[in-house]
Amino acid sequence: MNLTGLLCKKYEMTLSSLSLILLPAIEDALRAAVADADGDRLGELYTMLAYHMGWQGEGSGPKATGKRIRPLLLLINCEAAGGSWQAALPAAVAVELVHNFSLIHDDIEDDSPLRRGRTTVWKKWGVAQALNAGDAMFALAHLAILRLEATTSVATTLKAANILEETCLKLTQGQYLDISYENRGDLTLEAYWPMVSRKTAALLSTCSELGALVAGVSEARQSCFSQFGHSLGLAFQAQDDLLGVWGDAALTGKSAESDLLTGKKSLPVLYGLGLDGLFARRWREGLVLAEEVADLARLLEAEGARGYTQETVDHLTRQALEYLDEAGPQGEAGEALRELALMLVNRKG
Amino acid sequence: MNLTGLLCKKYEMTLSSLSLILLPAIEDALRAAVADADGDRLGELYTMLAYHMGWQGEGSGPKATGKRIRPLLLLINCEAAGGSWQAALPAAVAVELVHNFSLIHDDIEDDSPLRRGRTTVWKKWGVAQALNAGDAMFALAHLAILRLEATTSVATTLKAANILEETCLKLTQGQYLDISYENRGDLTLEAYWPMVSRKTAALLSTCSELGALVAGVSEARQSCFSQFGHSLGLAFQAQDDLLGVWGDAALTGKSAESDLLTGKKSLPVLYGLGLDGLFARRWREGLVLAEEVADLARLLEAEGARGYTQETVDHLTRQALEYLDEAGPQGEAGEALRELALMLVNRKG
Repeated sequence: MNLTGLLCKKYEMTLSSLSLILLPAIEDALRAAVADADGDRLGELYTMLAYHMGWQGEGSGPKATGKRIRPLLLLINCEAAGGSWQAALPAAVAVELVHNFSLIHDDIEDDSPLRRGRTTVWKKWGVAQALNAGDAMFALAHLAILRLEATTSVATTLKAANILEETCLKLTQGQYLDISYENRGDLTLEAYWPMVSRKTAALLSTCSELGALVAGVSEARQSCFSQFGHSLGLAFQAQDDLLGVWGDAALTGKSAESDLLTGKKSLPVLYGLGLDGLFARRWREGLVLAEEVADLARLLEAEGARGYTQETVDHLTRQALEYLDEAGPQGEAGEALRELALMLVNRKG
Repeated sequence: MNLTGLLCKKYEMTLSSLSLILLPAIEDALRAAVADADGDRLGELYTMLAYHMGWQGEGSGPKATGKRIRPLLLLINCEAAGGSWQAALPAAVAVELVHNFSLIHDDIEDDSPLRRGRTTVWKKWGVAQALNAGDAMFALAHLAILRLEATTSVATTLKAANILEETCLKLTQGQYLDISYENRGDLTLEAYWPMVSRKTAALLSTCSELGALVAGVSEARQSCFSQFGHSLGLAFQAQDDLLGVWGDAALTGKSAESDLLTGKKSLPVLYGLGLDGLFARRWREGLVLAEEVADLARLLEAEGARGYTQETVDHLTRQALEYLDEAGPQGEAGEALRELALMLVNRKG
């Protein structure tokens, strides 16, 4: 077990007990927010949103909702910064709706038939309705953040809205880069960070920052929390990329889960392309076949990509924890925050 | 020339002179707002947005930008309510960006190859990038409305953001209804208003309301302006539907412009379907062919749909002008507002 693995064990308990309180509150608030899209003649629009959120339809239930990591991070961060999670709940709803809006649209853009093991919204209702349902989810997110007015001040609400909207723009910039990379064979590692900073790290950074903002800490501490979230987001994505090539689902049986098969320009793949060795040569010859996946993953590991990616995860995690120390998190929530961070970068799937 | 035609002539001058000042200011502010999406490696994302806005690429120029009716309405409304248009400029930018976001996505949803005579964004850059570019335009709109903070108060900015975000949700609800109507043969007139209220009237209503809000009028007057914009929006859409069947482009040569060909559930079509006469019988047999368009338009007119639609436009226009009188618009801008309203419902194409 590596360093992060050991640390993770130590903190396991605090996060679990906090989550028991926070997760049901998040789910209730999300349900109330999404219900605003409903109305006379609009039942099917609401159904699409509720289906995507994991509440309705085939396969609905805890597995279908996702882990609600972003709102959880936001609320725990608010508590760790000395605030009350109840006050931050509208912001927690907003970030989770932004995340889910982007998933609905990403699934259309990537032509993905499945999300969390269930048929995607566009595959079920067609591109036109799914695209529009994503827009509705986006609109609900913007409305949600404005509800901070009821739990904080007008000034805090405006600051929070500005932070969230800047992040939404970054998400679309990251997504633009991601799509534009698809058909390019000339990319190396330096293309990776501008994309994942915006596509993944920006929203996690925003979760931490909004939690701290609602808690009312100084701008300097707010910035430390924000940088904690940013480094954590980068580490999270690098870990995701590691699992995408060497995770259980990627290596065994379900080779459809392998990033090598989808042609994704992940961190280890870009590392391999930069080396210009045997892996790069095979990659540039065209789409990888299912039966090649295991061999190619071994080749990429032999060329050092797995070690490099794991080192990157560890380095970014340490950086995140340093920022967190600097931010001075408090009490049980502070411990839970550390634990959540370690859990995110130490998961196996 | 009908009533609205006569009134339109009378007011022609005031609007033109105001537009000469406002339109360049709107265009400059839009360019500044859209430039925020640009950045290192992001040139093509900006290019997509600038192309759609009519500023770049083949066919760019005044014809490609659209008429900027919504920001114009908002600014003139602000002046007519006794405010200063400069203060309302961020809101004007926001509504135009919301409008254009919805056009980029609508073109994907409707599979439309052309917009204002130019290739649509999705046809030029593919669905994935176009969908994401629309999301970026949407994010820019949300950022734009928050910039009211620099020209008004924090409280006004939050009110404006709430009004705009509620409207964005309504737009997606209206679009949901519009798409869901496509494959239904059982619709009648009552299906029309819930759809166009949200899809068209909500944003025009918001333009008037935001202009009045920034001007700082009482809530009662603000509501009159809002209802003026709402009735105007309904009249505008009914007039659009009239032109979609009996406008020059629909009847002559460019039959691709006819709503009869695309199967759109417009006001005259729904009127005809409700009668259950010869038109309805032909409509229910399946897609209309190009060579039938002129005959079918004549049949629909003979069944009374054209007269009904024109009466609806006139009735809604009178209603809009009554709300406007009640709102008590001031000075030259008040006259220009009346003129803009009449121009919108009296256009020939």
